[in-house]
Amino acid sequence: MKRQRIAIDMDEVMADTLAKRLAIYRTEFGEELLRESLHGVDIYDAISEERREAVRAQLFIPGFFREIPVMEGAAETIRDLLEHHEVFIATAAMEYPHSFTEKYGWIKEHLPFFPDHNIVFCGDKSIIHADFLIDDSPRHFERFAGQGILFDAPHNAKEDRYPRVGNWSEVRMRFLGEP
Amino acid sequence: MKRQRIAIDMDEVMADTLAKRLAIYRTEFGEELLRESLHGVDIYDAISEERREAVRAQLFIPGFFREIPVMEGAAETIRDLLEHHEVFIATAAMEYPHSFTEKYGWIKEHLPFFPDHNIVFCGDKSIIHADFLIDDSPRHFERFAGQGILFDAPHNAKEDRYPRVGNWSEVRMRFLGEP
Repeated sequence: MKRQRIAIDMDEVMADTLAKRLAIYRTEFGEELLRESLHGVDIYDAISEERREAVRAQLFIPGFFREIPVMEGAAETIRDLLEHHEVFIATAAMEYPHSFTEKYGWIKEHLPFFPDHNIVFCGDKSIIHADFLIDDSPRHFERFAGQGILFDAPHNAKEDRYPRVGNWSEVRMRFLGEP
Repeated sequence: MKRQRIAIDMDEVMADTLAKRLAIYRTEFGEELLRESLHGVDIYDAISEERREAVRAQLFIPGFFREIPVMEGAAETIRDLLEHHEVFIATAAMEYPHSFTEKYGWIKEHLPFFPDHNIVFCGDKSIIHADFLIDDSPRHFERFAGQGILFDAPHNAKEDRYPRVGNWSEVRMRFLGEP
């Protein structure tokens, strides 16, 4: 197996950030926002205009990025990927400067084996020098020099320009060739 | 002028981290550690063994990375570089996780014009995809895919494998072709 350099996004890839956002929405508005309603659209386009500001503000709540459930299979797959490939975490933290310490704490808790020197907090991901970038946001692939791999999320359902993985089992199959 | 992508380190390049370390040393031990004594050696090799732990601990003092003097000419040159090139800040923050917020605050204070999305906190700088990396630590150049440019610091005085700049005027000359 050729050793590749794989960069992996955090939110909506390792961390189920959307689950947390939907839970906050439920508490705040006493109403369900269904994943199905987010099919192919940004969360802000799926809700009424008067709720947008409150939903955006979720991301600025201190602690928001610290307490997010880990995606099923993410930790085990990343641990195994590290044995055969060079793996980096590449997360766009600069939009939420309070998130640095929270994201670092999240990684320490959920991926305690992950090497610190392979963590990257950035903004523009075209700065990442890697063979692959696994991300839910196709905008990061536009200037990325390697191959973007789209990780399934409701908002990117209509994107068809990039190879896609549906979950962490598919990441494992693609890069380790085993279920 | 060809638009280049230039990544620039913080400590001992934009920020005079050594000046701060020598000041703390003076306060702590009531004795000067001269820059000349650091010629071609790591700070830890220039001091007695029993002081090494205390000097290493400087970097873990809360606030250490927030209050560091800016290098002469750094802010003006970076502001002008941004007009002609794509500029990123690439700093190895992962060794000192408390430094994230402090380093971000330092950038906001001293380079208030610098775009957030071009800031990168990393460990291993081989992840940086850029044409040039201006850094005082030659170890970062070893696996860097672009051209390393060594920024003068006492500790790197004996390094001769990379092109070198002595100060920010020389950075300006090299990338903007004007004094």
